[in-house]
This record gives sequence, C-alpha cells and structure tokens, in this order.
Amino acid sequence: MFHKEDLTHPQTVESAREILAGSILPIEDTESKTLYDAVGGILAEDVTAKVAQPPFQRSPLDGYALRGEDTKGASKKHPVRLRVIDHVMAGYVSGGNVTPGTAIRIMTGAPVPAGANAVLRQEDTDCGEETVEVYAELAPGSNIVPVGEDFQEGSLIARKGDVITSDLAGAIAAAGVSKIAVYRRPRVAVMTSGDELMDPGQPLLPGKIYNSNQTVLAGRLKEWKIVLSEVVSLKDEPESCAEQIRRAAKRSDLIITTGGVSVGQKDIMHDVWKILGAKRLFWRVGIKPGAPTLAFVFEDTLVIALSGNPFAALVNLELLAGPVLAKMAKDPRILPGKETAVVTRDFHGGGKVRRIVRAYVENGTVTLPLHKQLSGRLLAEEHTNCYADIPAELMDVPAGSQLTVWIPGRF
Amino acid sequence: MFHKEDLTHPQTVESAREILAGSILPIEDTESKTLYDAVGGILAEDVTAKVAQPPFQRSPLDGYALRGEDTKGASKKHPVRLRVIDHVMAGYVSGGNVTPGTAIRIMTGAPVPAGANAVLRQEDTDCGEETVEVYAELAPGSNIVPVGEDFQEGSLIARKGDVITSDLAGAIAAAGVSKIAVYRRPRVAVMTSGDELMDPGQPLLPGKIYNSNQTVLAGRLKEWKIVLSEVVSLKDEPESCAEQIRRAAKRSDLIITTGGVSVGQKDIMHDVWKILGAKRLFWRVGIKPGAPTLAFVFEDTLVIALSGNPFAALVNLELLAGPVLAKMAKDPRILPGKETAVVTRDFHGGGKVRRIVRAYVENGTVTLPLHKQLSGRLLAEEHTNCYADIPAELMDVPAGSQLTVWIPGRF
Repeated sequence: MFHKEDLTHPQTVESAREILAGSILPIEDTESKTLYDAVGGILAEDVTAKVAQPPFQRSPLDGYALRGEDTKGASKKHPVRLRVIDHVMAGYVSGGNVTPGTAIRIMTGAPVPAGANAVLRQEDTDCGEETVEVYAELAPGSNIVPVGEDFQEGSLIARKGDVITSDLAGAIAAAGVSKIAVYRRPRVAVMTSGDELMDPGQPLLPGKIYNSNQTVLAGRLKEWKIVLSEVVSLKDEPESCAEQIRRAAKRSDLIITTGGVSVGQKDIMHDVWKILGAKRLFWRVGIKPGAPTLAFVFEDTLVIALSGNPFAALVNLELLAGPVLAKMAKDPRILPGKETAVVTRDFHGGGKVRRIVRAYVENGTVTLPLHKQLSGRLLAEEHTNCYADIPAELMDVPAGSQLTVWIPGRF
Repeated sequence: MFHKEDLTHPQTVESAREILAGSILPIEDTESKTLYDAVGGILAEDVTAKVAQPPFQRSPLDGYALRGEDTKGASKKHPVRLRVIDHVMAGYVSGGNVTPGTAIRIMTGAPVPAGANAVLRQEDTDCGEETVEVYAELAPGSNIVPVGEDFQEGSLIARKGDVITSDLAGAIAAAGVSKIAVYRRPRVAVMTSGDELMDPGQPLLPGKIYNSNQTVLAGRLKEWKIVLSEVVSLKDEPESCAEQIRRAAKRSDLIITTGGVSVGQKDIMHDVWKILGAKRLFWRVGIKPGAPTLAFVFEDTLVIALSGNPFAALVNLELLAGPVLAKMAKDPRILPGKETAVVTRDFHGGGKVRRIVRAYVENGTVTLPLHKQLSGRLLAEEHTNCYADIPAELMDVPAGSQLTVWIPGRF
C-alpha cells in the first residue's frame, strides 16, 4: 500500500523516458535465419554482395546477339542477313564467338556471348533459326545490361540495424547470401493485477469487471513482434506478486504490470519493489491518464508498473514502454511517431495536468474528441489513429492551434 | 514453350484484376482464437457485449462516497464532518447504505454504494477513517461513472470483417468475450522457375544468377500474414512443373509461380496449363514490367504465373495477386492504397506501354526516379515507398503533373 514516504516529485514523460532508457541496454543476442524467415526482423550485421548483379553482361530481351556494326542500313525493305551460329538461353553460356556476319539467338536473362556488342529484339527480325533477317539498325552497346548494374561484388547491400523488408531480403538473396543474423526480439512478461478483475468468459460477479488490460497489452506487444515470456494475472497480495516478478525476471527482458500503483490501501506495488529489494527509478509521471506509473529495476530487469485504468495502461505502454522496447529491439518501428498538427475544431477537455486523448490525424490536421473523453474509455466514439498531447494548464484548445500528436508505430 | 495460338489480346491491370477476383471466393473457414492470439486477424463474427461497461456505477477516484447535499457550505475553514460507515475497494461491494451524515471510503474502480450520489476526492478531505472532514462542496452526481458509459449490454462491440487490433481485442475482453472466430488465412504456394536460378549460398556457376524471387514473394506474403503452403523451385520442364502444381493445388488456396511465361522456347508455362487441363484466364497484361503475366485455374485453384523478372514479379504480386488475396482473406490491408499525387520533378521514362516505377510519395507529392529505372533492378537508388503508375504513350512526365501511385499495404 501507499505510504507518505513513497511520494516523489513526478517525472515528465520525457524525463521518465530518459530514465527508463538509461536503465536498459539494447539486446545484442542474434539469431541466424533464412531470408524469408528473417523478414520483419532487424538485421544484426552488414551484408555485402558475394557477386555482382547481374554477374555477367545480360540480355534484357529475346532476340539476337550480334555486332551493331553489322546492322548498318538494315530495314524491313532491305534486311541484312546474318548466320545464326548458336542459341543461348537464360542459365546457359554460349561457347560461340560472334564474328562479322554472324549472330547468336539469345533469350532474356542469358549472358551476351563473346564478340557481340548489342542485342536486337526478335520483333525486328524474321526470327530465323539458321540465318536471320535483320530489319533494323542497332547501335553497338544497345540492349546489354552491364555487369553490376544493380550492385557490384563487395558492395554494401544492407546495414546492421536495417528493418528486413521483403524487398531488402530479395536484394540480399540476389547478392548470394542465404542466411543472415537478426537481433533476438525482447521477451516481455505481462502481469495484470487487481482484485476487481475477472477473466472474460466467466460469469461476472458483483463489483468485478473483465480484465481487458491483459488483452490490450499482450496484443499490442504482439503487434510489435515482441515475444511474450508470460501473460498472467497477479493476486492483490505483495508477497505473491514479488515472487511472480522474481520468477518472471529470470526469463524476461522487461516486465510490464498493471494496477496497484495509486495511493490506496490495495496499491501493493509500493510494497512489491521493497520486498524485492529493487531499485525504484520513479513513481508518478505528469500525465493524465497514467500519472501513478511506477518503475523499478530488479536484478537487471526493468519493471514498468502501469496504472490499472485501461486507457492509462494503453497510453503509457505506447509512450513509455514503447521507447524502451524500441531501444531494446533496436527497432524504430515501435517508437510512436511525433507530428505537429493543426486542430480542426475547438476542444474543451484540458486541465492542470498534461493530458493525452485519442484523436484523428490526417494531412497535418488533428480532430480532437467532441465530448470530454474519459480516461477509462475503451472504445472511442469516432475513428481515431493517434494520441493528441494537450499541454498542462491549457483548458481549451481552439480550432486552428497547433498540437503535438503521437502516432502508434505500424509494421 | 510459346506457340502462336497462345496469343491473346492483353488485359489491362484493371480487367485482369476483375477476372482474377471473379475466379476465387473469399475464405469462409473460421478458427476460434483467444483474444490476443486473434490480434492481427480478421473477425469472422459480430461481437456483442455480454455486460455493460462499466457494469455498475463506478468511482473514478479514491475518496468518499456520500450525498452531495451533505457537503453544502463545506470548506477547509469550515469543514463538514461525516461518519464513515464502511470501506470499499475495487472488486468488492459495500453492504452499507449512505444516509444523511454518513459516507463510505471508496477506492478507484469500486461500485458506488447505495444511497450515495457523489464521490469526493480524498485530496478534499482529512482522509479520516472513522469520521471524515470534508473540505469542499460537491454537487450530487459528481465523480460517478454511469453504468454502460463505455458500452451497454448487448451493444455491438465489433463487426464481422473488422481487423482485430489490440485496442479492439481489449474492448471485446471488457465486454466479457474470451474467444472469437477469425477467418483462416489463405494458404499460398510460391514456385519459382528458371534454369538460370541458383539458391543463394551456393557458388554461382557461369550464366546463372541467384534466385531472389523466392525470397521476395515468400517474404511479402509473410508481411501480409499469408500462410506459405510451400516454397519450392521448379525445374524448367513442363511435365514436372504440372505435377508440382497438381500436388500443391491440394493444399493451397492460390499458387504463385515466376518465370516461363514469355515467348521463348523455355517458356514452359504455356504447356503447363494445357498438360493440367486447366482453364486459362488470360495471358499478358498491358503493363511494364510484367506484361507476360499468365493466369489459369486448375481444379478450383487459381494459379498466377508471374514474369521471372524480379521487379516484374514484385510489382505484379502487389497489383494483381494482392487484390486476389485481399478478397480471399477479406483483409483490406493487403490491397495497395491508391492516391493521386503531384510530380515533383521531370521524369523521362515513359513509353508506349503503361509503366510502373518505384517512387516516393509524401504529403500528396511524388518523386520519380532520376534515371530511367530498369525493370530488373532490385535495389532502388533512392528511398522509395510506392509504385507510380505512368500511363501508356506518356513519354515525359513533367513536374507539376498528376499521377496515380500505389502504396503497398502495411500491417
């Protein structure tokens, strides 16, 4: 429970983020993965090309490899006839050598044979097999894709820290690399507390509500591609909570709890960190909702204890835990985007404390909720896609003013 | 291989999409999942609330449940004293009844007891246990969250077809529902062909290139949360290709192949659909790259045979296969977004055929590549995030003109 001596000066969101970031290290463990398994992960090494792409002078079309000089004056009316000395398809190399008066039938993707300095598209010929009639002039150098046009051997294809998209994985494959090192994703335990909570699916008893925090937090972590080391409900009892955290810390990079952080008798998290002998980092952040957020470090494992209020838990997961996980996972996608937007209509829900409300941002404008949005609300009345950040002491936000908005990261 | 009788009039991208969409049905199979496992999926049923949220009149703060009338004239200087007849915490119900001159100590989230019509925050009291000194006036009705403020019992929480975000899953949990039906994701086989292809990781033989299509396609399907039924390399031999497609069709909703669709001797897909006795839907689309795209249906399974050119395969996966999978999975996130944007600088890469090039779209403007971008190119020189759609016959695209751009869907 809360004791007077637990009181500290509240952090700002920004100072809380700094303290949290300072208490953890990026995960350096890596895993070797095949390319398409690695898609979605963060690359843990620089990747250089084992070969040039293309690795040889390549024909970009179906036609005839020849000497451009031989086509001089050729037209449909006055074709030039060349002797076809070989056929070459993609994947094969012609042993032939194109000398004056000869050509080699060539297919898209095949290497341009020795002696040839241009490839004529078959539409400009009679498609002959033994000899070919050439209907068009072609300058030397035409229709030959040079070696390394896409990239040279040894060139840097992808950097340590890159997000591995399907495009990038394709380029890595083309460069001849089949396995890459990716960073291990953070393992996070989600622990919800509160005697008022019941699991959905059970009949609701008087005074109880269904536990939605567990689903919201575990779901959001899943959207962030975080590994859930455990998802459990805690009892409102300090000793057993401490024991569960002690156990979870062994296999988690971060522990996120909800509930028990306010100033009531049942606010057991104030006892839990003491029982654990943990180092408290801060308690209280100057933000509504989510003010009572508590953070402590137990044996190198950071514990972020969020308010049990569902909207508070969600906002502070995004604004406080998100940056921690972005640093741990070296994954910028987890960081909420920050933009400045012009308010579309008057809003009258500010207060003494900095406030976060759901809002809708589009093309540099932000629409705030029509009614004062209550912090416990789960379903927004209108479609929302961001959190608007309303500074302290700003009671009314008139249309036309500028606000910071936070946009949850998407993958 | 290609035969003259295989020639058909090319489809537009739009007509090809219509034909493809007409050849498949949305997947109606569903799976029952726990809420956070369901996050990221598509909801296959309407979900209504089993209970109101909150299910009772709820205290939004720590304080005292009382009759607002009793606080009349109260101030720090002239406090009103009330008798505290019970304590109630979140998760519990007080048996007490607040009558004039009494109050019940109440914690955030607890049900407001009978007789009380307001909750006074503890900061405006002496926090007394047996009796409490009230320092502020409070109007009846203050600080009581009404039953069903968030949603009423029986109200619609989520609709069939909704994308299950962590937020929505949280609302479903709060509504008392623990398991939901989600649509089964499509199962797709990726089959790349071409004698020129070698798997990355092996030493590259003369005339060969590394197979990047397999990685790009399988990776993109993974980004779309599609299940890969198989990922295999085909031999450039029609009978064995037909056999592999016949086998894959048994466990795939869609088969995507690359290569073998042009007009050369090794373009075996023209033989494959005949061997299978499949129904050809179309061959050729009026688009560069990717013109030779072929589509056929074998025993109810759609096969989209893409060009082997890596950029062509990628573009047509996005523009042709994407909409098919969006319909199959009932998942709008897979559909590429379509926007109109103003060109920032002159581009000189148009031609007789409609052309797709990588580009960068931001705030309604689109930047096209500086150099004529070759279709086989895997790595864009500049950062790109969309495909610009350059109409046929438009050789030059001057700065200031408008173009359609396609934005790959993100999850």
